[in-house]
Amino acid sequence: MSVTYPKGFRASGVSAGLRRNGNPDLALIVNDGPLRSAAGVLTSNRVFAAPVGWCREVLAGGVAHAVVANSACANACTGPEGLADTRAEAALVAELEDCSQGEVLVASTGIIGERLEMDKVLAGIHAAHAQLGVGAVADEAASRSIMTTDTHPKTTEMDFDGVRFGGIAKGAGMLAPQLATMLVFITTDAVVESADLQQALAPAADVTFSRVDSDACMSTNDTVIVLASGGSGIRLSGERLTEALSAVCADLARQLVADAEGSHHDVLITVNHASSVAAAVAVAREVSRSNLVKTAIAGNDPNWGRILSSVGCVPVSVAPFDPDQVDVVLNGVTICRGGMIGEDRELVDMTGREVHIDIDLAAGDASGHIWTNDLTHEYVEENSAYTS
Amino acid sequence: MSVTYPKGFRASGVSAGLRRNGNPDLALIVNDGPLRSAAGVLTSNRVFAAPVGWCREVLAGGVAHAVVANSACANACTGPEGLADTRAEAALVAELEDCSQGEVLVASTGIIGERLEMDKVLAGIHAAHAQLGVGAVADEAASRSIMTTDTHPKTTEMDFDGVRFGGIAKGAGMLAPQLATMLVFITTDAVVESADLQQALAPAADVTFSRVDSDACMSTNDTVIVLASGGSGIRLSGERLTEALSAVCADLARQLVADAEGSHHDVLITVNHASSVAAAVAVAREVSRSNLVKTAIAGNDPNWGRILSSVGCVPVSVAPFDPDQVDVVLNGVTICRGGMIGEDRELVDMTGREVHIDIDLAAGDASGHIWTNDLTHEYVEENSAYTS
Repeated sequence: MSVTYPKGFRASGVSAGLRRNGNPDLALIVNDGPLRSAAGVLTSNRVFAAPVGWCREVLAGGVAHAVVANSACANACTGPEGLADTRAEAALVAELEDCSQGEVLVASTGIIGERLEMDKVLAGIHAAHAQLGVGAVADEAASRSIMTTDTHPKTTEMDFDGVRFGGIAKGAGMLAPQLATMLVFITTDAVVESADLQQALAPAADVTFSRVDSDACMSTNDTVIVLASGGSGIRLSGERLTEALSAVCADLARQLVADAEGSHHDVLITVNHASSVAAAVAVAREVSRSNLVKTAIAGNDPNWGRILSSVGCVPVSVAPFDPDQVDVVLNGVTICRGGMIGEDRELVDMTGREVHIDIDLAAGDASGHIWTNDLTHEYVEENSAYTS
Repeated sequence: MSVTYPKGFRASGVSAGLRRNGNPDLALIVNDGPLRSAAGVLTSNRVFAAPVGWCREVLAGGVAHAVVANSACANACTGPEGLADTRAEAALVAELEDCSQGEVLVASTGIIGERLEMDKVLAGIHAAHAQLGVGAVADEAASRSIMTTDTHPKTTEMDFDGVRFGGIAKGAGMLAPQLATMLVFITTDAVVESADLQQALAPAADVTFSRVDSDACMSTNDTVIVLASGGSGIRLSGERLTEALSAVCADLARQLVADAEGSHHDVLITVNHASSVAAAVAVAREVSRSNLVKTAIAGNDPNWGRILSSVGCVPVSVAPFDPDQVDVVLNGVTICRGGMIGEDRELVDMTGREVHIDIDLAAGDASGHIWTNDLTHEYVEENSAYTS
């Protein structure tokens, strides 16, 4: 189970006919309460889709009764008409659920610059509402409906001190955002108000989803939503809630990396002994964005020169360190020591899917990490052959 | 001709045996004066090669008698021993030319993290010195000796108001910096002091070499050097000198883009109606760094959604504009108007090598551009198959 694992939720997923292959493409998740708390983290891209703007308004209101999400079409760059489409979706769900349209979150993923086929979407919402249910079948239908290029659904369920958490996600770690926006829907039966939920979600997302960087750029539609029903009757401390949400988000984020399109390696770049967490993350991110590092990893080449060269591109104002003190450890082998040749590169085994790059800056006590993927022929193929 | 086209210069290129294929790999350019002015722009990477650190010191001295350059080995991440090797090169050239070693610039390009084979290098310097000459043969030998993955030499010669300029360059627009560091050596017989030459070179490099961005990261060895002999007896105004050097640098930069490894398209991204030149360049650079845009171009796909999405990733503090006012013109077709769908994408012809992306921010009067390349299977192949 996933989103209906916590008490107080129903879910469904149907084929509305938006996807040409007939796969499910419209999901509905309803929070039956007693609470209807909600929190969210949305794309920081200045070019954002209509449903993202809509979610900002709903989340500001602090009450969310339901989430409706579709794949196949992102409803992005569609102007005032696109926003009207989003509003019409919310209005129909509100009518069916007898709530306010301002309490219905909306998410879309798929092609940019095309209008939603609203006749199909509205019929799909009717169908999804009729099929709302609790349990594994309902959850799987919901998780499959938000998939685009994902090879399998991403789901999680966890327990913390008697409180249940469930979640579904789709996306490919930004490896192909146009088809693979990250959508994440998390449910919990914790007793928590929206403001506290938001305060717990922000740091959790910051150390999980925000540290997955396959492609250097947020999509127009990235959406992470948490709904809380209060159904457990249990209230967690803020700290414990953040801990729980961090675990839930980390699980889903790791699944996204593992299913990144066209990738052969999941790469964990950890920077230690940095002057601050921000400095550590900045260095890890710079390395994760180097196409030369990423292609080398695709070729199983322990090319520490490319890693060190990208470390050196971080301005000293962002991350103070002495390049002559930097060590680079690749899958446990210190191939670069003090900015120079270290152990024999032949000792590095890069045949496994997971690759660990550990960079020691010798400049402080802080650490930070970024997950990324390698840059492969398949990545180029998927992203050049596709015609929007 | 190229570097010996201006009066006062001799050049040569020899095979010192550093390259396994026996191709020429060591170039020497000597300034016979009467002036020995020099200026340079060097990598801003904090991890820089020994010869780059050496050049900084020589340029600070303001007098350069010669440049010695090798391919095959970058002499980067080689520590104090690497710097000693660079100094030994300068010392030998100084001995042969009867000048101070602090007047000899050194440049290297090739593999990171390996020491130079100094016996071969020093023998090569003797051979290169013996072959110094003036004319097409000498110039071609020099230009070929600095090539790595370049498919042909890049050269230029120009005249401005009776003053001659010549230049050679190697590199592949940072598409593969480990093998393809950018090295540029420009000569002129203008009468100019080093400080004025530096003042003219900096803005010229800024609007040419610094606006080529194929790979988002400077290499450890990037080096642009200008030598002035004063042989023409003519002094240009500072403005005219900048104009001349800009034309020389633009010609060489364009040749670098055109020979970028594994690329099928040269892409000129121009941003107009920005609030400042810096804002325009920042937006163009962000687009040039999007792997999604670059793979779409490789697939001849006029994917304006990806372009607009990457424009939206530039923070408002860097480039103020309203995303709903942005137009995107691809090879003359306004495929995105006011942040929404514009003309039919089928009208865009992307079969030519050159692709023009024009972005109108409707936010001011400034413009800026970046040259980049597409991201192809061949790029991944060259950079993953290569083992350092």
